[in-house]
Amino acid sequence: MSSTVGQAIHCRAAVAWEAGKPLVIERVEVAPPQAMEVRLKILYTSLCHTDVYFWEAKGQNPLFPRIYGHEAGGIVESVGEGVTDLEPGDHVLPIFTGECKECAHCKSEESNMCDLLRINTDRGVMLSDGKSRFSIRGQPIYHFLGTSTFSEYTVVHVGCVAKINPLAPLDKVCVISCGISTGLGAMVNVAKPPKGSTVAVFGLGAVGLAAAEGARMAGASRIIGVDLNPNRFQGAKKFGVTEFVNPKDHNKPVQEVIVEMTNGGVDRSVECTGNVNAMISAFECVHDGWGVAVLVGVPHKDAVFKTHPINLLNERSLKGTFFGNYKPRSDIPSVVEKYINKELEVEKFITHQVPFSEINKAFDYMLEGESLRCIIRMEE
Amino acid sequence: MSSTVGQAIHCRAAVAWEAGKPLVIERVEVAPPQAMEVRLKILYTSLCHTDVYFWEAKGQNPLFPRIYGHEAGGIVESVGEGVTDLEPGDHVLPIFTGECKECAHCKSEESNMCDLLRINTDRGVMLSDGKSRFSIRGQPIYHFLGTSTFSEYTVVHVGCVAKINPLAPLDKVCVISCGISTGLGAMVNVAKPPKGSTVAVFGLGAVGLAAAEGARMAGASRIIGVDLNPNRFQGAKKFGVTEFVNPKDHNKPVQEVIVEMTNGGVDRSVECTGNVNAMISAFECVHDGWGVAVLVGVPHKDAVFKTHPINLLNERSLKGTFFGNYKPRSDIPSVVEKYINKELEVEKFITHQVPFSEINKAFDYMLEGESLRCIIRMEE
Repeated sequence: MSSTVGQAIHCRAAVAWEAGKPLVIERVEVAPPQAMEVRLKILYTSLCHTDVYFWEAKGQNPLFPRIYGHEAGGIVESVGEGVTDLEPGDHVLPIFTGECKECAHCKSEESNMCDLLRINTDRGVMLSDGKSRFSIRGQPIYHFLGTSTFSEYTVVHVGCVAKINPLAPLDKVCVISCGISTGLGAMVNVAKPPKGSTVAVFGLGAVGLAAAEGARMAGASRIIGVDLNPNRFQGAKKFGVTEFVNPKDHNKPVQEVIVEMTNGGVDRSVECTGNVNAMISAFECVHDGWGVAVLVGVPHKDAVFKTHPINLLNERSLKGTFFGNYKPRSDIPSVVEKYINKELEVEKFITHQVPFSEINKAFDYMLEGESLRCIIRMEE
Repeated sequence: MSSTVGQAIHCRAAVAWEAGKPLVIERVEVAPPQAMEVRLKILYTSLCHTDVYFWEAKGQNPLFPRIYGHEAGGIVESVGEGVTDLEPGDHVLPIFTGECKECAHCKSEESNMCDLLRINTDRGVMLSDGKSRFSIRGQPIYHFLGTSTFSEYTVVHVGCVAKINPLAPLDKVCVISCGISTGLGAMVNVAKPPKGSTVAVFGLGAVGLAAAEGARMAGASRIIGVDLNPNRFQGAKKFGVTEFVNPKDHNKPVQEVIVEMTNGGVDRSVECTGNVNAMISAFECVHDGWGVAVLVGVPHKDAVFKTHPINLLNERSLKGTFFGNYKPRSDIPSVVEKYINKELEVEKFITHQVPFSEINKAFDYMLEGESLRCIIRMEE
């Protein structure tokens, strides 16, 4: 047993004191885990757009000071009362949404939208007692997505922790805990392209490229990448993208361009931008009779999806997915296994690395559109 | 071989000379079937809303004189050149859409939207030569949906003919050739409600009741019927409908009413009215995480389906179907078998019967909302 069990731990964390201002590495106190919680030592974390979006706090209620971070790999330091399926030393990925294994969603084979632990971007405290486990000289610091992985230690609900194969290198598989699984699962769990099929992916950031990677793994014969940024095409080829369409290059709707390229439409499409017009294009570019469009990107709260119903009646399907339909605890370990078995290539998503002390550089890389994933090493 | 083979047949047909005017029983000449066509002796036909809709000709290009009718049962009288899988004496259902067995749709397991023989409401002639097989004193009379079953004899493309078990009574199974299969297939082939699930059906005409019948057959535990006409509820109980919601009885959107009734939404919904607001309600009343909404009803050409994309992202699916996703030749014979095996009860759809000479009564019954299906006996 670690000597820290049951004790507060003092460690470094990157604290966001204000919206859009550089994070500050601070000495924080991390309280011990309460019932059904675990305390994790984070070894590697990576930066996702969602961290940046909430740090910028342009579109939602600001909640500061806060510790961001939700893509990470770590090791269980200690467990709270009632935790039976994790123990100190386990290798884990914290996940921004949970799986209680008790609710109707967890009991459904089709859903991963746990009633108890579903993603909550507004909550900055632990579920059990409404308090934070982080503090600086007695001042509470808010949690983010129940994970707050921009800290050397963090406390997470046991339902938000996936126990993975300890042979998996945490500096690589940490990226599986959010974006990669979201795109990959959207393709392999929801769109399910048959071997040899034609696929379109809207948005060639990390999530879209993970969707393309899923299509490549499924044996799609044509993978059409759609993005407004032509600089992304060269890199996208590594993820199996075979053709590129920039809507700016055409004077008609991109769905019409794709329908012409494919003699009637693609078999599957996956939308990863969150732009509602891209969603409509992604739906209207699938083939009648069998086409399936899957929405992944999160839209503006006032966005309205519109289409003529005949597009549906001609036997097209439209589906949405959250976290690639993966159940965090039950399914994510198998995604890690796909990496170990060399089916899934995660290295190519990792474009940058920085030590924890330089975490603000990771934000710069993302804001400049330079990085797919930047790994932040907690140990310098 | 019948003595009529290769000869024109003179017989009775109900001709629509003008939009909305009573049909007139006329003596028509029916030419012999050309290559890949068959001539059928119709024994029973029934009236479907689509006949009435095009006869009223309020929303589309009028095409008169025309012989309507597309739900029917009959016997092959003779076959044209190249027809190998049907012969005189075969019991058949003519179908308003076809299956060429050669195109991408026919070769797809998922589609029934044949490129060659897909429903065409504007065409009033045969595909091969652009001519009609019906005439009166040399004046061509237009076909309808490639079937024109309001005639004692009709000529149909072989791809639009389902060969069925000769033990099936044609005066019952004739209703399987359109509406019943459309609703039934939407439920059992597309919505696929798991046993014990909760289902909503919008619109309790024949198609909606067939969808309810499908839900009953699939073992749904709650079947919620939605209709503006409360007179339909009593009859709907025979088709397995367990609860009834009249949107007029509530001062909030019907989807909210259903979500409250079902603790979060139904597992499956099927929309059979074609009203775009009902389509939106049918989609928004399904449960997040796993709900599937299926659209069947044909909308107004200017209708726009609108929803907030988050309704999709919360793992709801929206699908459309045409003819219940049944392939006419490959699948419809098995629906007839379901009737023979007493799984599917078609008698309860048949509310009226008239002799051919009184076919206009069938129109009256439908226009007055009195009938589900009225069987028209060709032999008096």
